[in-house]
Amino acid sequence: MWIPPNHPRRESLLIRERLVEGFKRGLVVPEGLIAHGRGECFDYLIGESTQPFALKAIEAAVAALLLAKHPVISVNGNTAALVPREVVELAREVNAKIEVNLFHRTREREEAIAKWLREHGADEVLGVGEDASATIPELFSERRRVSPRGILVADVVLVPLEDGDRTEALRKMGKIVIAIDLNPLSRTARAATITIVDNIVRAVPLMVAKAREMKKCSRSSLEEILRNYDNNQVLQEALRHILNRLKELSESKLTLS
Amino acid sequence: MWIPPNHPRRESLLIRERLVEGFKRGLVVPEGLIAHGRGECFDYLIGESTQPFALKAIEAAVAALLLAKHPVISVNGNTAALVPREVVELAREVNAKIEVNLFHRTREREEAIAKWLREHGADEVLGVGEDASATIPELFSERRRVSPRGILVADVVLVPLEDGDRTEALRKMGKIVIAIDLNPLSRTARAATITIVDNIVRAVPLMVAKAREMKKCSRSSLEEILRNYDNNQVLQEALRHILNRLKELSESKLTLS
Repeated sequence: MWIPPNHPRRESLLIRERLVEGFKRGLVVPEGLIAHGRGECFDYLIGESTQPFALKAIEAAVAALLLAKHPVISVNGNTAALVPREVVELAREVNAKIEVNLFHRTREREEAIAKWLREHGADEVLGVGEDASATIPELFSERRRVSPRGILVADVVLVPLEDGDRTEALRKMGKIVIAIDLNPLSRTARAATITIVDNIVRAVPLMVAKAREMKKCSRSSLEEILRNYDNNQVLQEALRHILNRLKELSESKLTLS
Repeated sequence: MWIPPNHPRRESLLIRERLVEGFKRGLVVPEGLIAHGRGECFDYLIGESTQPFALKAIEAAVAALLLAKHPVISVNGNTAALVPREVVELAREVNAKIEVNLFHRTREREEAIAKWLREHGADEVLGVGEDASATIPELFSERRRVSPRGILVADVVLVPLEDGDRTEALRKMGKIVIAIDLNPLSRTARAATITIVDNIVRAVPLMVAKAREMKKCSRSSLEEILRNYDNNQVLQEALRHILNRLKELSESKLTLS
């Protein structure tokens, strides 16, 4: 679909098209489309741009990934559809494994996602078929199946667009969980160790850039970034940002003439 | 899909099922599922019930429809999937024409929607095939194609679930545009003459009931309702309502341990 360059919602419509393409390609399920719409809602409230609270979380997230022994990036259908190349780049920069993990798991979809990621430069994609032979406790969905070389042994897991159950389960296993979630009130956002309240199409490229910059830092300075990071404060800032925006807007002229 | 009667999100899940059914029936496109997800999120923020600001807009909308010379209800895939019978009833009560108008237009989908509306009691459905022979200016999508007996000559157009471009184009043509949109920040909401910030599954039945009641009113009392209506104030009230709800939600400790 052609969208005029000056269309005010061009960016959002293009992202939507990427997701619909992923749907047609068998990467994304209908539930993923609806979940994307929910994200669009919060992106509206945030103002569709990366805010300081997200930048703080991105910095801490990159520090955690660089410090990790076994960092893993967990990829679902929407993530694969939206930022395949950026996920591969980030994995390379922080030396992380990539693992497919799906709520609505089918062998075809796992393989379609793994193939798509390899087409975007991934050397290895864990969690496909027999490789997802380990299980993590307390999860009822097919998300409990993980790779014994990936999420099972990971100390830091990046879970873009995750559900709350799984975030909690991973935390209970003692892992550092980094979430990317536009809704600061979601269970995922609230249960994660580090929550990046931002759109993944903006956040992941920023993480790649930050990783390139921060991998020159000493371990102790990375550790200090992590020590000073306060996720509760970041979530509160995100909410305050939304509240302030709504307040300003509710006091201004809204109708367009 | 069976949903337990006491499920806290039962109503919302049932609506979603109706949309997914419309998707399987060829009425709804994948982009429509995304748009619905965004609506669900705003409905959650609004509290999933019709608020006073929506009731005010509904009253003004019905007054405008009853006063119109050529009222038209524009129907897209999501609207057809969610409230087919109610749209037909409303058209009957206010003597409006029904016209199919799609962003992602295909002949099959136009016809599937028209058939679906006729199955729900519509006598005539405009905007299908050759009937959509007129064009309205300044629209790039297939939405610019309209019926010369419908939207082209309409003085009042009800556009449930509309996009901003089209709302603006219709306004520029001097028409009164009534939008139903859960997002008070959308361009549609801001560009419309009257914006009902509510879920169409609640708003359209309320409009039908209101039309039955108000069609007994004199023209001058309907005109007075319209004169006293302030869409900017309604949008501000909607935003303030969301703001207050978010504030309540945010006053607790956010991180889960």
